[in-house]
Amino acid sequence: MQKPPRESELPRERESPWARARETRADDDAPAREVRLYGLNACLAAFARRPEALRKVYLTQARMPELKPVLAWCVQHRLGYRLVEDGDLDRLTGSRHHEGVCFEMLRVPPLTLAKLLAAQPSSAPSLLLWLDGVGNPHNLGALMRSAAHFGAAGIIVPEESQLDVSGAAARVAEGAAEIVPIARAPSTAPTHRTLRASGYRVAATVPRDGTPLYDAKLPSRLVLVFGAEGEGMSSALIGAADIKLTIPGSGAIESLNVAASVAVVLGEYWRQRHTSAKPRA
Amino acid sequence: MQKPPRESELPRERESPWARARETRADDDAPAREVRLYGLNACLAAFARRPEALRKVYLTQARMPELKPVLAWCVQHRLGYRLVEDGDLDRLTGSRHHEGVCFEMLRVPPLTLAKLLAAQPSSAPSLLLWLDGVGNPHNLGALMRSAAHFGAAGIIVPEESQLDVSGAAARVAEGAAEIVPIARAPSTAPTHRTLRASGYRVAATVPRDGTPLYDAKLPSRLVLVFGAEGEGMSSALIGAADIKLTIPGSGAIESLNVAASVAVVLGEYWRQRHTSAKPRA
Repeated sequence: MQKPPRESELPRERESPWARARETRADDDAPAREVRLYGLNACLAAFARRPEALRKVYLTQARMPELKPVLAWCVQHRLGYRLVEDGDLDRLTGSRHHEGVCFEMLRVPPLTLAKLLAAQPSSAPSLLLWLDGVGNPHNLGALMRSAAHFGAAGIIVPEESQLDVSGAAARVAEGAAEIVPIARAPSTAPTHRTLRASGYRVAATVPRDGTPLYDAKLPSRLVLVFGAEGEGMSSALIGAADIKLTIPGSGAIESLNVAASVAVVLGEYWRQRHTSAKPRA
Repeated sequence: MQKPPRESELPRERESPWARARETRADDDAPAREVRLYGLNACLAAFARRPEALRKVYLTQARMPELKPVLAWCVQHRLGYRLVEDGDLDRLTGSRHHEGVCFEMLRVPPLTLAKLLAAQPSSAPSLLLWLDGVGNPHNLGALMRSAAHFGAAGIIVPEESQLDVSGAAARVAEGAAEIVPIARAPSTAPTHRTLRASGYRVAATVPRDGTPLYDAKLPSRLVLVFGAEGEGMSSALIGAADIKLTIPGSGAIESLNVAASVAVVLGEYWRQRHTSAKPRA
């Protein structure tokens, strides 16, 4: 059993959903990059899929029963684990929602758009999300969970950012961050052309003046573009889209939360793919 | 111009979405209850609808332009306002998402179920949400925003709790907390009977084994019940429901986030009410 870390070892994670990747080994060609995951489901999902990516485990005494297989792995592979207090985990994760566990893990290596597209069947229905700068970890995590639930094949994020999914976003995703691959691509015309060449149509979701979602026949190969909270998506991305979609509503408020918008549009795509239209009474 | 508050005046708000109402005047029959709202949209929406409920304003210098009418109101009605630093607002609101403004306001007085129902047209379509203990302010705020967007008439919360919407939830709701009324009712059979007597059907949203959402014809007068994150809703509430709904999906993850579930089901209700069924090609 190792000693709890000293406070100086416990930096706070910033609140951005995209934690800048920390280089942990400068001697490699491709430096290893780690993230501090927390939340029981997020940690267990990552360990189940990528145990070899585990680097270090922090846990409270109360979490030992659920983490027995993880600790056994640590012993077997000579990885460090530390029993700590809740307050240590607060500081280590920068959150009070760690649920008594934090894993330091290598990040999932980012995909190129070409690799993401190569992994898709060439003509079957396929759904991708394209985020133009979602800036809130809770929203990013929630929309990753919706993407996994409704079977989206991947999420495209701006290449410019060079950032990655944070521990906070992964916690809210409840394991979905291990399921939905993330690819980086520039938000420019060549990306549109690549997507179209693979048979996709690009639909921008806009707060007003698009085709009402429930009047649109959604293409079976579809890239759904969502803008950032606040400023929305860039007018270049909107202008280049094949379709503009608007989620109809009462008009009582300006727009839906971005994670709610994603859930609604993914649900409608699922409905159109999986149900036969029946006239209603 | 008043002086910034001392640190001792700046308690942290707890992270529960339901901040326990603080009694601020013990000499009244019905004690006034206040909440610290923060976030520009949440504060401005509350002021626009209920200026008389304003008690005190904290703001940063940078926010003065947007808040001129509010400060004029303060001067006119002899209410205090204070120019403070960002760090003061961090402590005052218990959040870094205050956007430079915090309003102390009287809460919206809670409704009884009878009053909420009396405000609805007696036979027209009407949609209510019934939350069995949603415990995360981000989820509560996001689902209130979706409820306002899709025109839900109100939200029923457990009477037992005696708690109210927190500043954190109101911030995420982006003004929707001022639009969608909240009523308290016990989670018991008499509440079901009251709802049915008003022509509503009660649908419980469950992670599995319910009628697939997109196969269900949703009644036009509908109460949608959603459970808490984690433990879900009580088996008594599920058992007493007229309909059980499940949002279909890939099966890759256990369930959707509760705010995402609300958005998906509200969207489908909207679709069934507002579109005519057209056979798809």
